[in-house]
Amino acid sequence: MSRVRVNCFSVSLDGFVAGPNQSLEHPLGERGPELHNWFFPTETFQTTVLGQERGSTGVDNDMAARSFHNVGAWILGRNMFAHSRGAWPANDEWKGWWGDTPPYHCDVFVLSHYPRESFTLADTTFHFVTDGIEAAMERAKASAKAKDVRIGGGASTIRQYLQAGLIDEMHIAVSPVLLGRGEHLFSGMDLYALGFKSPELIPGEGATHYIIRR
Amino acid sequence: MSRVRVNCFSVSLDGFVAGPNQSLEHPLGERGPELHNWFFPTETFQTTVLGQERGSTGVDNDMAARSFHNVGAWILGRNMFAHSRGAWPANDEWKGWWGDTPPYHCDVFVLSHYPRESFTLADTTFHFVTDGIEAAMERAKASAKAKDVRIGGGASTIRQYLQAGLIDEMHIAVSPVLLGRGEHLFSGMDLYALGFKSPELIPGEGATHYIIRR
Repeated sequence: MSRVRVNCFSVSLDGFVAGPNQSLEHPLGERGPELHNWFFPTETFQTTVLGQERGSTGVDNDMAARSFHNVGAWILGRNMFAHSRGAWPANDEWKGWWGDTPPYHCDVFVLSHYPRESFTLADTTFHFVTDGIEAAMERAKASAKAKDVRIGGGASTIRQYLQAGLIDEMHIAVSPVLLGRGEHLFSGMDLYALGFKSPELIPGEGATHYIIRR
Repeated sequence: MSRVRVNCFSVSLDGFVAGPNQSLEHPLGERGPELHNWFFPTETFQTTVLGQERGSTGVDNDMAARSFHNVGAWILGRNMFAHSRGAWPANDEWKGWWGDTPPYHCDVFVLSHYPRESFTLADTTFHFVTDGIEAAMERAKASAKAKDVRIGGGASTIRQYLQAGLIDEMHIAVSPVLLGRGEHLFSGMDLYALGFKSPELIPGEGATHYIIRR
């Protein structure tokens, strides 16, 4: 059965999922990349994202590999697609952070307050949805068919979907990092009341993995 | 060298160290005991706290055992000592949660806004400090001599000592539990700016242990 998933969502020991002061230079915020130090060396990241035949195997890699299995469509918040804010420039040349071959290989629905034409890069098509998170979910489910919908982030997007009760399963990777400041994932949110119970604990090499389900 | 430590401080995946609605019936708040499910079965808890010769061995037990080593004095917040609030009743019969043989075996300094006479149970003496966290620390250090001072909790006491820069090392045990509500440990606190850097990651059987140092 098709599910709505979040995977490989890295969070610091103090609960932050991105550092402060996001910019073109710091797309994950200052010190944000440290959250993903468990992910970057994995074979999955090296092959799937960088196209290099190398990388570590083990629990962290298994969790990374699993995150790409059976995904039929993605949903991203605007800030995961672009550093720009506000209306899209005419003939915007920004096509995302991922170069000519984005690692999605399916339809990607980008939440935005501003309309923009869909475009295709290799086997990934980016669509821009301006009528809200439920509308984006409907379009993503229709596109994914029997496969799962994966919500990529960022924090604000995940929080909106959690609060709307639209996420079935979420994999969190707690990194041994203290950020101190940045975007907090769970602040002010009662996950227990939202129906998420006993997390599954999976110790990895560079992070600790938890899977929470409704 | 004598250090100031926090040990075995259990925190939920969503950052809470106690459940909501503390009371005599729920000293750790509602569902608070679930945070300590990694600790209760250990040989250390069973022998040191319950006086039973039984219990599990392994990483969780090692972390629990380590927490009692080389401790020369303790500091506790009022709420860790008693469920009552406000001025102490005359001839208060409440002697703590631990029965006739408290598991401290040294001087324990209880932070309080209200004076109360010291008293001794077995080899533990409880003192009540009304002139602030620095004063309690000075008295605890003097009592501990070359050994360490351990701050037991709760969250508010730990937060005050962290913000005052008076904690050298803190061991956090992240439990695979979502509380949703309760007392949050790190909310609004910038541990990185306070000098705590790369946490040490120690996977356990029932929780994941992190040691942060300045």
